[in-house]
Amino acid sequence: MGKAMGETLERLEAVIRDRLAAGDAGASYVASLAAKGRGKIAQKLGEEAVETVIAAISEDDAALVGEASDLIFHLSILLATRGLAWDDIAAELGRRHGTSGHAEKAARK
Amino acid sequence: MGKAMGETLERLEAVIRDRLAAGDAGASYVASLAAKGRGKIAQKLGEEAVETVIAAISEDDAALVGEASDLIFHLSILLATRGLAWDDIAAELGRRHGTSGHAEKAARK
Amino acid sequence: MGKAMGETLERLEAVIRDRLAAGDAGASYVASLAAKGRGKIAQKLGEEAVETVIAAISEDDAALVGEASDLIFHLSILLATRGLAWDDIAAELGRRHGTSGHAEKAARK
Amino acid sequence: MGKAMGETLERLEAVIRDRLAAGDAGASYVASLAAKGRGKIAQKLGEEAVETVIAAISEDDAALVGEASDLIFHLSILLATRGLAWDDIAAELGRRHGTSGHAEKAARK
Repeated sequence: MGKAMGETLERLEAVIRDRLAAGDAGASYVASLAAKGRGKIAQKLGEEAVETVIAAISEDDAALVGEASDLIFHLSILLATRGLAWDDIAAELGRRHGTSGHAEKAARK
Repeated sequence: MGKAMGETLERLEAVIRDRLAAGDAGASYVASLAAKGRGKIAQKLGEEAVETVIAAISEDDAALVGEASDLIFHLSILLATRGLAWDDIAAELGRRHGTSGHAEKAARK
Repeated sequence: MGKAMGETLERLEAVIRDRLAAGDAGASYVASLAAKGRGKIAQKLGEEAVETVIAAISEDDAALVGEASDLIFHLSILLATRGLAWDDIAAELGRRHGTSGHAEKAARK
Repeated sequence: MGKAMGETLERLEAVIRDRLAAGDAGASYVASLAAKGRGKIAQKLGEEAVETVIAAISEDDAALVGEASDLIFHLSILLATRGLAWDDIAAELGRRHGTSGHAEKAARK
């Protein structure tokens, strides 16, 4: 468990960075959203969060998985447009919850 | 990149499941939140999302990393209380964005 | 100040109730949204709230007034579909903040 | 209907302005929140919106009225700290939905 998610986030980051680098807003949702600027990315993230909150209250596991996936996808876009990576989140989670193999090292930073 | 996040999510899931299994709401934030029920978990997730949206607009990368980490932590709690795992999100992201090593297989389901 | 808002909310409620009663989802945004059910109304309210939060951080007063107006409009739809009215909110605000002419009476309930 | 809400918002605005003018963060929630700045007001508004969204899905009318009241209260604080008033929202709603007694005049602007 979790290992598949590591590979997935790695590939998702690579795809998003490619599309941001290509910058063709006509051909790519990622490039198009990024071109609209920080406010629009934040807004879209907020909208996906609202849908996740609503799915969180429902009994519908498939809906929750779908909305949480959209939330993670848009969080990936947000991080990439800021030059941040899931590794930065991993390091922070390690510091806060001791969940990194390198938690001690990270805490010394 | 991403690999550290895979390990982190794996450990985070294990920690959260342990605390849910122990169920000692007095000793554990996770158990305490879960005991308050679906609505309170959804509310907390929503609050962390609001803080992430606000950090997304700011220039402050450390704030964004901190808020996104809290959002991921609470999403982990939500998934665990529903008997779901990050692997379910990985499979769904694979289906939607072809980011899984098993994307073709998953798409056939 | 505030008096214009009272008249506005009164008329907004009347318009929304008319459209809900007519129920022609093809002709009316209000009827169309209501027909989609509780979850969709809640989602739309959440999306308008996200936009209001983003405008609240910006320096743009016109944007804030626009988003807050959309939020109030969707809150009016939500209340009307539940058989609630702005008077119910007024009574509750009176109880909580003593802002009603009948605050003392309401507090005794 | 609606008239009570007009009086309520009028009084609420007056109370909030008094507390902002007094500026005693130790004695007043409004002054204390305003002193924390734009980001904290936006965050609190977002949190109340999350609670309203959750109540909007529930069957509990009293919870919805309570959360919507808190949302309106915090929107009042936000508007006041920006030098805006409910009359500005009334004018905008009039322009958008023809709900003002002066809708025709406003639409010509």
